[in-house]
Amino acid sequence: MSPPSSYPPRLTRLIDALRRLPGVGPKSAQRMAFHLLERERDGARALSAALLDALDNIGRCTQCRMFCEGEGCRYCSAARTETGQLCIVEGPADLIAIEQGTPYRGRYFVLMGRLSPIDGIGPDELGLPRLSEQLDAGWVRELIIATNPTVEGEATAYYLAEMGKARGIRVSRIAHGVPMGGELEYVDAGTLAHALSGRTSL
Amino acid sequence: MSPPSSYPPRLTRLIDALRRLPGVGPKSAQRMAFHLLERERDGARALSAALLDALDNIGRCTQCRMFCEGEGCRYCSAARTETGQLCIVEGPADLIAIEQGTPYRGRYFVLMGRLSPIDGIGPDELGLPRLSEQLDAGWVRELIIATNPTVEGEATAYYLAEMGKARGIRVSRIAHGVPMGGELEYVDAGTLAHALSGRTSL
Repeated sequence: MSPPSSYPPRLTRLIDALRRLPGVGPKSAQRMAFHLLERERDGARALSAALLDALDNIGRCTQCRMFCEGEGCRYCSAARTETGQLCIVEGPADLIAIEQGTPYRGRYFVLMGRLSPIDGIGPDELGLPRLSEQLDAGWVRELIIATNPTVEGEATAYYLAEMGKARGIRVSRIAHGVPMGGELEYVDAGTLAHALSGRTSL
Repeated sequence: MSPPSSYPPRLTRLIDALRRLPGVGPKSAQRMAFHLLERERDGARALSAALLDALDNIGRCTQCRMFCEGEGCRYCSAARTETGQLCIVEGPADLIAIEQGTPYRGRYFVLMGRLSPIDGIGPDELGLPRLSEQLDAGWVRELIIATNPTVEGEATAYYLAEMGKARGIRVSRIAHGVPMGGELEYVDAGTLAHALSGRTSL
């Protein structure tokens, strides 16, 4: 549903543009447009400039495929390479979550997706040839696979594990089980089965 | 909470700018930024341009205070003036809702707020001197008050009604009652009391 023609044309254009943001429908876009025009003109100008600046200056790191600015990728530093650890995640948000929530300070590889042949996403789309080169370079001692525990994520993890094992690299998968603070009674059966089979000795 | 420093600076700036949109928190802003950079670069560029264009070209109508573009306000046309009706609403979204949902095609006056002395919003902030001029101009035969049925909205309606009555103009208030499709059993007592006292003869 496009906004009705009762708006002035430039307002229609702004509302349409705001609707391209994820999770923003016609009503939210209208509210955003009115809010920006009524009370946040400075914010709107800042947003416009930040968008252009980001588009023009944020690219992809050729090593880890994370978003990166001109001055070199902060996640591919020599210090991180020295850890010998490479953590594979599906997307930038996963990298940020690990970086913020854990003491992990090794390197990353961002797939920007997961294997999904039905959608035409194969190894090439995920940059796996580039990953192969890095594994062949010899500095990786542990491959940590942190794809999501979904069907595609698990299939991707299996594929990645084979890539590591074929080169004699130690491969690990992040643990899946009962979340901290969760209650067994309310955890789904699949998670509980994972938690039991993945039990660790104390 | 500002986004953590683990982002590249331009990404931080973009996420901060997106958070100024209403209803967008840190997680949503991050998701929006990643989405735009990953999959919607065209959309991001369009949004940036639409924002600038809107800021530079959308102003306020001097008559009705609605957003308006250079070519003159579509809601203040001579044809609408001829109806002799002036509908007063609190905000632009209210105007659009009436315009879209009803056959009303008279003129409007947008308060851009409601009387709220505690927040320093008095008659001047709502442009009521401008409204007085219009009422004095003589073309208004009916003043339709469509402020929201909240405490401030009702107080504003009372004030506006006095303005109209002092000039001998017919003043009406939109009806409040049981919403269409609603069930009496589930309607709150205040609405039900309004519906009963505002009953109309058949």
